[in-house]
Amino acid sequence: MNRILITGCNGFVARYFVDYFRANKIVADFMGVDVAESCSMDGISYSQMDLMDLESIKKVLLAYKPTHIAHFASVSSVSQSWERPVESFTNNTNIFLNIVEAVRKLGLSPRILSIGSSEEYGNYPQHALPLKEYYQLRPCNPYAIARVAQEMISKLYADSYDLEVMMTRSFNHIGPGQREIFAIPSFIRQMLDAKAENRTVVSVGNIDIVRDFLDVRDVVDAYYKILFFGRKGDVYNVCRGMGYKLSDIIQQIATIIEFSPELIVDPTKVRPTDNQIIIGDSSKLMTVLNWRPVIPLETSLRQTIAHMAKEG
Amino acid sequence: MNRILITGCNGFVARYFVDYFRANKIVADFMGVDVAESCSMDGISYSQMDLMDLESIKKVLLAYKPTHIAHFASVSSVSQSWERPVESFTNNTNIFLNIVEAVRKLGLSPRILSIGSSEEYGNYPQHALPLKEYYQLRPCNPYAIARVAQEMISKLYADSYDLEVMMTRSFNHIGPGQREIFAIPSFIRQMLDAKAENRTVVSVGNIDIVRDFLDVRDVVDAYYKILFFGRKGDVYNVCRGMGYKLSDIIQQIATIIEFSPELIVDPTKVRPTDNQIIIGDSSKLMTVLNWRPVIPLETSLRQTIAHMAKEG
Repeated sequence: MNRILITGCNGFVARYFVDYFRANKIVADFMGVDVAESCSMDGISYSQMDLMDLESIKKVLLAYKPTHIAHFASVSSVSQSWERPVESFTNNTNIFLNIVEAVRKLGLSPRILSIGSSEEYGNYPQHALPLKEYYQLRPCNPYAIARVAQEMISKLYADSYDLEVMMTRSFNHIGPGQREIFAIPSFIRQMLDAKAENRTVVSVGNIDIVRDFLDVRDVVDAYYKILFFGRKGDVYNVCRGMGYKLSDIIQQIATIIEFSPELIVDPTKVRPTDNQIIIGDSSKLMTVLNWRPVIPLETSLRQTIAHMAKEG
Repeated sequence: MNRILITGCNGFVARYFVDYFRANKIVADFMGVDVAESCSMDGISYSQMDLMDLESIKKVLLAYKPTHIAHFASVSSVSQSWERPVESFTNNTNIFLNIVEAVRKLGLSPRILSIGSSEEYGNYPQHALPLKEYYQLRPCNPYAIARVAQEMISKLYADSYDLEVMMTRSFNHIGPGQREIFAIPSFIRQMLDAKAENRTVVSVGNIDIVRDFLDVRDVVDAYYKILFFGRKGDVYNVCRGMGYKLSDIIQQIATIIEFSPELIVDPTKVRPTDNQIIIGDSSKLMTVLNWRPVIPLETSLRQTIAHMAKEG
């Protein structure tokens, strides 16, 4: 029986990850942990936990003895990491180190999914795109550094302690339920509200940047395959392999909701050093683990808009 | 007036750093901080501090307004980092992040010395030696990872926040007063004791490894030059540029104290993944900052032995 421990189980990705097992009739038991008092998901066991507390991680690990750990807990916003770099570092690197150290100390051998980010690559010139796993990492924001450090720790524990850790470099996600601190839900919310209130002005950051967006359901399909069938110590890009300019996505949203916004750049939303263009190469994931993205961007946008319109 | 804040002021390097100013008649005021209740050095101001506490760092920075920060606080042992990786990470990476974040938040502009390690390079084949600053970093122990993360943070704060941070990659130190958890003082202590007690057996780890040893007085000369005259965001190897096999150093110690040890390898002292050979290239430091090492290894060994013999 698969016994899957999910950290950050109240988050956006965790919910879709559990849904994936149910939809594909993969038998598994789930134990979720998160900082909140209660679990936002039905049908899984839950334990409130501060992942900075090594001893309480050990206690849960010993009691549950997971066969797999899907480690989704993270403060994953780049802009937040500029505001609060210490918090970003602690809630990415340190909590991950605590988990693998607890596993090692207890002599357990679960397979562990370590989530990283496309931000780890840093700025590469256009001719070097799409980004490949073997490229040198040149992180240029606090969140990116935290993820590179996490990846180094993953590799060390895989190589030196023989822990079954697999790593991702995950590119941008999109899908119903994503929080509004992220760019696309923020655009949609503002445009829905502006339309409802007969305003036209929408405040944006740098919308000339290009990002590789993947639907969260394609993301969790990749995560399942990597966690269950990936190779120890290997890192996998999780991306579509196509770039979308944020201004073009705004145009698509405008078309769908039939609304023409007037875009005002808010300088506080422009980050000190922004990567201009990020597109990944997903060949490894496709070749080695037989993964394919199946949800077109327009579908993700339409469903996200419908979800947010319903929320009001 | 130079106002120099020294973290880890009760440590081995800090004492020599302050001595350097006095010996060279460089006028400076010092404020030391450390975890202990009192300061082990005379003639400097002192404040007990936990560098994990951002608020107390801010308080001292605001009160003292340093022109320079020499950040020596660290848990710098590789072997300890295998035992307690969380502690190693916290006491290198996290405390450094707290310091630069406190400086940034307060809008101060001291010059900051960020100490790194030769361990950051990882394993390079012999033909690639000596190690040069532009080489890719491939850390393969917990301490090395913590120092790479610290260096990434240094670079980020220099590039993005315009903080005057200079980084080192410091190779092995030697000199009177170094603690016995480090290889050479440990050899000397054991050999002095064995000789005094008419025993011959000395317990060692892997003594086939080659390291680049520099006297601590040459090290602090480099640190002064980097902290005062180095270029923001630059990294400097601090090393002699010569490799010594540990077994050869043991032979030199044996000759000096006139004692022939019988060496027994203690497997608990052999680390999971040890770098076989580490030699650095100090051309940058020599060319750009006009630094030269002046103390031969034999002098360092003789003085360290004399110091430890006196301690008994």
